[in-house]
Amino acid sequence: MKGVVLRTHPAAQLVDLCHAIRPGDIPGGAFVLEQSALFFPAGTVHVAVVDPGVGSPRSAIALQTARYFWVGPDNGLLARAVEKDGGAIACVRLENPEYLLTPISRTFQGRDVFAPAAAHLARGTPLRALGRSESNYARLPVSLATDRDDHWTGAVVYVDRFGNAITNIPESAPIFRVGTDVKVRFPGREVIVPVGAYYQAVGVGFPVAVLGSSGFLEIAINGGSAAEALQLEIGTPVEARLSGLSPSA
Amino acid sequence: MKGVVLRTHPAAQLVDLCHAIRPGDIPGGAFVLEQSALFFPAGTVHVAVVDPGVGSPRSAIALQTARYFWVGPDNGLLARAVEKDGGAIACVRLENPEYLLTPISRTFQGRDVFAPAAAHLARGTPLRALGRSESNYARLPVSLATDRDDHWTGAVVYVDRFGNAITNIPESAPIFRVGTDVKVRFPGREVIVPVGAYYQAVGVGFPVAVLGSSGFLEIAINGGSAAEALQLEIGTPVEARLSGLSPSA
Amino acid sequence: MKGVVLRTHPAAQLVDLCHAIRPGDIPGGAFVLEQSALFFPAGTVHVAVVDPGVGSPRSAIALQTARYFWVGPDNGLLARAVEKDGGAIACVRLENPEYLLTPISRTFQGRDVFAPAAAHLARGTPLRALGRSESNYARLPVSLATDRDDHWTGAVVYVDRFGNAITNIPESAPIFRVGTDVKVRFPGREVIVPVGAYYQAVGVGFPVAVLGSSGFLEIAINGGSAAEALQLEIGTPVEARLSGLSPSA
Repeated sequence: MKGVVLRTHPAAQLVDLCHAIRPGDIPGGAFVLEQSALFFPAGTVHVAVVDPGVGSPRSAIALQTARYFWVGPDNGLLARAVEKDGGAIACVRLENPEYLLTPISRTFQGRDVFAPAAAHLARGTPLRALGRSESNYARLPVSLATDRDDHWTGAVVYVDRFGNAITNIPESAPIFRVGTDVKVRFPGREVIVPVGAYYQAVGVGFPVAVLGSSGFLEIAINGGSAAEALQLEIGTPVEARLSGLSPSA
Repeated sequence: MKGVVLRTHPAAQLVDLCHAIRPGDIPGGAFVLEQSALFFPAGTVHVAVVDPGVGSPRSAIALQTARYFWVGPDNGLLARAVEKDGGAIACVRLENPEYLLTPISRTFQGRDVFAPAAAHLARGTPLRALGRSESNYARLPVSLATDRDDHWTGAVVYVDRFGNAITNIPESAPIFRVGTDVKVRFPGREVIVPVGAYYQAVGVGFPVAVLGSSGFLEIAINGGSAAEALQLEIGTPVEARLSGLSPSA
Repeated sequence: MKGVVLRTHPAAQLVDLCHAIRPGDIPGGAFVLEQSALFFPAGTVHVAVVDPGVGSPRSAIALQTARYFWVGPDNGLLARAVEKDGGAIACVRLENPEYLLTPISRTFQGRDVFAPAAAHLARGTPLRALGRSESNYARLPVSLATDRDDHWTGAVVYVDRFGNAITNIPESAPIFRVGTDVKVRFPGREVIVPVGAYYQAVGVGFPVAVLGSSGFLEIAINGGSAAEALQLEIGTPVEARLSGLSPSA
C-alpha cells in the first residue's frame, strides 16, 4: 500500500497509525480511528482497512468531512470518526478505473483500491472524480451505553496493549467523580473500584476506574492488565453504578 | 538503521515494509519482498535483513535492477525480487570502508553496513563505488511446485498475519477455476475446498482456495485462520488436484 | 502523538524507533534508547514514553545535550542516553501551557505533553520557553556490573526479539577474548560458553558469548533463543568468569 501511494504521490508523508487491530474487529478499528484521527492536521487523508469484505470496488468508499478525507471499506469502520468531524460533506464509491490499480485483485483492496484513491486525494484530485456519489454508506451499529437511575449498562469497546479496557459508558456521567467508588459488574463477577484521574490513584496491582483520555470509562489495573485479571475483552457487558447507593443484588 | 540512513541522507524518505518475518526465515522474507517491492516507485532503494550470517562485509551485497537498488545479505533474501524486476544489472560486495560505519560490529550488519550503503545509493553514489563487482551472488533454492497430470505438488511458502497460507502453486494452473472444487492434501489430512475469488465466497468458518493477490494458490478460512485450523506452516507440503477427477487414494 | 506533532510542525520527519518495550519496563526502554539514539543526526528530537507515572505536567521534562533534544517522563528513561551524549546542558519541566495540548488528560501524556513539546523544539522553539529550568531530574539507578578477581557479577538488562540476552557486563573486560571459554552462571544453573565475535562462531543450537554491537556481553544461541533455552529475562543475575581459571564451587 505504501509503495502504491508513493508511486502516485512521491512527496506523500506516510504515517502508520495502528497495526494492532485484531483481524475482523471493525468496532475496535472504528474506536481507534475515532480516538486518533482528529488530532491530525486538516487536509490529512485517513486510510483504514479492517475486513473489507467482498472484493468489489462498489464496497470501497471515500468521504470528505470538514477537515479530512477518509478512504476505506463501506462497512462502518470510518463512520464514528466521520461523525466526530461533523459528518460527511460528500461520499463516493471508488469506481473510476482511472484511479485504481488494475487489474484489481479481489483480496487486496488496500493496495489496489484504497491506496491509489488516497494518493490521488492527497495530490489534489477532487473527491467527485473518484466515482459515483453515494449517500447510503454504512454506519456502524454503535452499542451505546444506556442510563437508568444512574445505573449504566454498556460494554467493553476496546482493549489497549496495556490491558486497559475502554467501555462505551461516558465518563461525563454524574456517577463518576474522583474520590467515589463505583460498583462495576461483569458477567459472573463484580468489583468495587475507586474512580481516579490516573492509573496511579490506586496502589500497584489494584483496579481503578479511570477518567481517561478517551472520554469513556476505562477499567485499568495500576501496573497490570485489567483485561487479563478481570477477563475482559471487546464486547464484554459492563454495568456501573455508584457503590454506596446501590447495594448489590 | 534509520538513524544511520538519516545521518548520511537527511532528506531520505523511510518506509517500513515488514517487521514480522520470523527470525531466520529467509524464504518468508524473500516472498514478502518479492510481493511488495515492485509496487514502489522507480529509484527506491530496498533494504532487507534476515539472518545475515557470518558478520563479514564480504557477505553483504548491493544490486541494481531495471528500476531499483537492493541492499542486504548475500543469502538469497533479495534474489526472488531481483529476478522479478528482470534480474541484476550489476552487483557489488559492500567492501569499501568509505561507505561503511566503522568500526563494523560483527552482529549488526544492518546498522553498520546495509544502512550506510543504502543511504549513499539513495543520495546518488554509483553502485560501483561501494565495492568490488561480483557476479556470483546467492540465489534462493526456490521450491517450485510441480505439475503432473493436473496434480500439483508444492508447499506453503508464507503464512500472513490472518493465518492465510500462501503456497508456491501458481493460481494460473488450469485446475483453478472459480466455482470448481479442489482436493487439497496436507500430510495426514485432506480437505475439499471450493475455489473462490475472495474469502467471502464461502460461509464464515469455511475453507476456500483463493485466487489471491499474490499469483499463487492461497488456502484461507473466511473469518478465521487456516494456518491454525489446518495446522499449516511455512514448508508444509501441499498437493492439489481437481476434486471430481481424482478420487483420493 | 504523531498527529499532534504534525499539526504543530507539518514538515516534521517522524521515525518510529521501537514499539516493543514491555509495559512499565523503564530500564529496557532506557537501554534501547541509549543504544540507538546517538546514531541519529544532530538536532534530532528524541521522544520516549514508558510508564510516565502520575499525570502531572511536573513529571514531564525536556533536556538538551551536545547534539540532541530529549522529551519524556522524569523517571530515568532518558538518563542513560543523555549521559552517553555528554550529559544535560539544560533541562526544563514541561509546564508552559502555551506548548501543551489542552485540556491535558492525565493518562495520555505522550499525546498531550510530550508530542507538542517535541514538535515545538523541532520547529526551533528554545528549550527554556517550554518551562521552568530544573537541575534535579531523575537518573536511573543503573545496576552496574562489578568486577572482583576477574569474576564479574551483573544482570540481564535487555532481551531482544531474537531472544539474545544483553547483560551489563562490559565486553571490554579482559576475560572476554575470542577463542576462550567463559563460565556463565545464572541462578540454579551454569553453562560454559565460547566467546565469539558473531553468532555463527558456534554450531546451530549452541550457546555463545558474543562480543556484540552493544558494548556489553551478550548471551546468544546460534539460530535459537537464549532467553527461552536458558530462562533469561530482564533482571536475571549473571556471573561470568574465565572457565579455565575458576573451577565452579
